Amino acid sequence: MVQQYFIDKLEVTLKERVPLSELDSHHFLNVMRAKIGTEIKVVDRKGFAYVAQLVEINEQIALLEIVRSDETISIELPVNVTIACGLSKNDKVDTIVQKATECGMNEFIPLALKRDVVKWTGNKVKAKVDRLAKISKAAAEQSHRLVVPEVSDLQTLDQLIKTADSFDVKLIAYEETAKEGLHSQLAEVFRQLEPSQKVLMVFGSEGGLESKEVEKLEAAGFLACSLGPRILRAETAPIYFLSALSFALELGKV
Amino acid sequence: MVQQYFIDKLEVTLKERVPLSELDSHHFLNVMRAKIGTEIKVVDRKGFAYVAQLVEINEQIALLEIVRSDETISIELPVNVTIACGLSKNDKVDTIVQKATECGMNEFIPLALKRDVVKWTGNKVKAKVDRLAKISKAAAEQSHRLVVPEVSDLQTLDQLIKTADSFDVKLIAYEETAKEGLHSQLAEVFRQLEPSQKVLMVFGSEGGLESKEVEKLEAAGFLACSLGPRILRAETAPIYFLSALSFALELGKV
Repeated sequence: MVQQYFIDKLEVTLKERVPLSELDSHHFLNVMRAKIGTEIKVVDRKGFAYVAQLVEINEQIALLEIVRSDETISIELPVNVTIACGLSKNDKVDTIVQKATECGMNEFIPLALKRDVVKWTGNKVKAKVDRLAKISKAAAEQSHRLVVPEVSDLQTLDQLIKTADSFDVKLIAYEETAKEGLHSQLAEVFRQLEPSQKVLMVFGSEGGLESKEVEKLEAAGFLACSLGPRILRAETAPIYFLSALSFALELGKV
Repeated sequence: MVQQYFIDKLEVTLKERVPLSELDSHHFLNVMRAKIGTEIKVVDRKGFAYVAQLVEINEQIALLEIVRSDETISIELPVNVTIACGLSKNDKVDTIVQKATECGMNEFIPLALKRDVVKWTGNKVKAKVDRLAKISKAAAEQSHRLVVPEVSDLQTLDQLIKTADSFDVKLIAYEETAKEGLHSQLAEVFRQLEPSQKVLMVFGSEGGLESKEVEKLEAAGFLACSLGPRILRAETAPIYFLSALSFALELGKV
């Protein structure tokens, strides 16, 4: 499979020469063992994909020439999905960002919730967000995504609610909904989605969401949805959601 | 949330006294800090769930009394799913078994394929299978499943094909299918599924499936399916499949 890298330019043109970042150059030259003439796929910040060729190596930076545009099949989800997650232990948030990027997420919001078992404070916040942004970029490259999902700063629930009006559809993954037998909510939401709409879904950490937090979100227009009858781990629920969305919108319409 | 354990008896009856396994006793008594009178959920090997109470601790084994049956909502997928996977690096097969158990899998078959980057040989095979069986049991308990997914011995592709006639539906996750634009195959298969049918799906390792292996499987009646336009990692593909299946069969029928 041809490797893909993101070019840090809004737009590139045919025959233009563009450098890879230091990190990507290292990966391309030393891990992938590229030689002058090796072709790879690059994507500019507007999301256009091109085939490019290694033409020069300068102080360990790979210089590429844009050869032709790459007519890729539509690889992005037909809607724009933001995942907001409570803070889980260990590397679970890393796993969520990596797998959700593979599955088509557009933005990730780390969310400080009441029942989180870990807290991000002080200098840790920036380091954590930077780390997640790196994971998102690497996963986007591996999955040949045309956009790198953005990782936002840590938000409180009130901050999230304040900015949530920019979304067309606002959802909560809430297992209590499942207990009430309301299993059809998600399918109903998916059926009503229109192309390019912005969807926001909130997930608790492994501690779950407090009923007060759910009430607050519902008062702000969020809709609680069940993700099926089985109890999913914090890092599995967003993948279930994105897989179901992809199936419904990309594979389901025969 | 109430903890759940599996009881190693085909069937239990009300007021019967049953011991937990050594491992579960340790977890229940020392990690969950259960006291005499603490209630938990237990499931017998037939898949019936009960509420049980800790009545005695004997040489670090917890003895439970079956209090009442637990009218659980249907927590198992309406069809019986076996996942067969090539051997991936590191702990990826562990991740697949854990997450696929959460998502409703019934059986796991480790599969030796041509492009696997790791090989299981000699004594390693039994140790690996035993480890996966433990992971499956723990994940089934955490997700309140009513059955523990079985982990089969390592199989070759020929061995798998020989026994595959016991399945009603045989599928291959094959990304080349996606490139051909055949995105509707999976939805079509899901639409035709009937309750309790046995479904087998084969996934490559991170090395992927060889086209010869796919041809062999197709000749044996397996159907190649796309899991959408994005490239999924080896450990993500089975989760996508099970999530899509759950969505289609459990949440989609309004």
